[in-house]
Amino acid sequence: MTATEIQVRYAETDQMGHAYYANYLVWLEVARTQWCRDHGFTYLSLEQSGFFLPVVEANVRYRHEIRYDDLIVIEARMTEMKRSSMKFEYRLLRGETLCAEGFTWHVLMGSNRKAVTIPDDLRTKMQVETPESS
Amino acid sequence: MTATEIQVRYAETDQMGHAYYANYLVWLEVARTQWCRDHGFTYLSLEQSGFFLPVVEANVRYRHEIRYDDLIVIEARMTEMKRSSMKFEYRLLRGETLCAEGFTWHVLMGSNRKAVTIPDDLRTKMQVETPESS
Amino acid sequence: MTATEIQVRYAETDQMGHAYYANYLVWLEVARTQWCRDHGFTYLSLEQSGFFLPVVEANVRYRHEIRYDDLIVIEARMTEMKRSSMKFEYRLLRGETLCAEGFTWHVLMGSNRKAVTIPDDLRTKMQVETPESS
Amino acid sequence: MTATEIQVRYAETDQMGHAYYANYLVWLEVARTQWCRDHGFTYLSLEQSGFFLPVVEANVRYRHEIRYDDLIVIEARMTEMKRSSMKFEYRLLRGETLCAEGFTWHVLMGSNRKAVTIPDDLRTKMQVETPESS
Repeated sequence: MTATEIQVRYAETDQMGHAYYANYLVWLEVARTQWCRDHGFTYLSLEQSGFFLPVVEANVRYRHEIRYDDLIVIEARMTEMKRSSMKFEYRLLRGETLCAEGFTWHVLMGSNRKAVTIPDDLRTKMQVETPESS
Repeated sequence: MTATEIQVRYAETDQMGHAYYANYLVWLEVARTQWCRDHGFTYLSLEQSGFFLPVVEANVRYRHEIRYDDLIVIEARMTEMKRSSMKFEYRLLRGETLCAEGFTWHVLMGSNRKAVTIPDDLRTKMQVETPESS
Repeated sequence: MTATEIQVRYAETDQMGHAYYANYLVWLEVARTQWCRDHGFTYLSLEQSGFFLPVVEANVRYRHEIRYDDLIVIEARMTEMKRSSMKFEYRLLRGETLCAEGFTWHVLMGSNRKAVTIPDDLRTKMQVETPESS
Repeated sequence: MTATEIQVRYAETDQMGHAYYANYLVWLEVARTQWCRDHGFTYLSLEQSGFFLPVVEANVRYRHEIRYDDLIVIEARMTEMKRSSMKFEYRLLRGETLCAEGFTWHVLMGSNRKAVTIPDDLRTKMQVETPESS
């Protein structure tokens, strides 16, 4: 499990007075970037090797509002891996409060933008974790 | 069913060369704004009456990539309504190609930020539609 | 002079209750895209021909606040052109009210990301206009 | 002088392969938030006291491109203060490279959204600094 901290930017609020719902997906991406780094590679290096990891499904359940200047910890886990796809699950916490949770499914693509089998060296770096447990 | 057209902005692309995944949620919001207008009210007037309609769940499945300058039609339908919550379903099309589909669940809140029963006058304006059929 | 209309998205507001200041730059880009189209080419085709037109300076003066759902007309003019650079000026209007004005400077770059002389065929399409006059 | 570090998010890139120009303004805001904190108050507390600090002018000169995953230090200084307005100047650095510089002018507004004289307690916290010197 990777824990990434973000602090909510003014840009990320809307006139309802809390963080706009699309920005949660941006934070999940920040958490994935950190997850890669914690697993011995960078997403940047993945792209430089000719791979892409586009999202094929995203889901967020919004439980408690998140506000400007809040410190939010995003827990990210890879909870499933298939031949060329993988699932991340996330929990967004402000202190003990679970503010949101969600998941994303990704497909590994080669430079021709077609799905490819996850190479062994990448597969060994990525470790599938049990959901909701560190 | 409401059809809203957006044209993809350069700001909405990422270095993968297509539209960044979080921006789809922004477009769904644009489609909801249009949906309200097509149903005889504006989301703005709803907020001015002391109501808010925050998102409690969002889901997008990404099928075909969407690129800069693409013209995308977003079909939006309200497919379910409960005492204080409602579900919208969406299809994002470039010509005949279904590029993405998704849904959002919303809860109607009063000025005290608590869920409230959807008032009758609003309920009569909103018409639940069958998914995937105009 | 090109006039482009945008309608302010909820995503573009912040908790101050009006449009967040960075989003004005996004709208200027939408106006430039339209300006190109009105001058017989698309910015997309420019990039497909191996050119890029990055911004080297941007300036916005915010005069009156812009709010959610506002219809804003962005007037865009190219007011200066040099060997490889050009300046656009903009006025953002809600009805008769001048809400903001600004300018951007751009440099034409080739596929090697170096400044290049603006080719004649592009130069003939682009017409320098006098500022603040249609 | 306040130094704030940001790491470029994938969301902040565009298809040109570097950070989209409007996002620099978001980073300046992150730097201002930090600047306030370094001067003994939070921008959040300012708003909670009924003040707003909207931007009335923003300017960025883009010198070297900024890319995904880059670590960027934003130096922020308040370089001018008038009765109700103030100017911040910024330098964005990747290591020793000056990638961009800019400024913003702000006006202090009260809860009625009118310009107000900067109160003495706030004025004493804010210290005008000489540009380009720490």
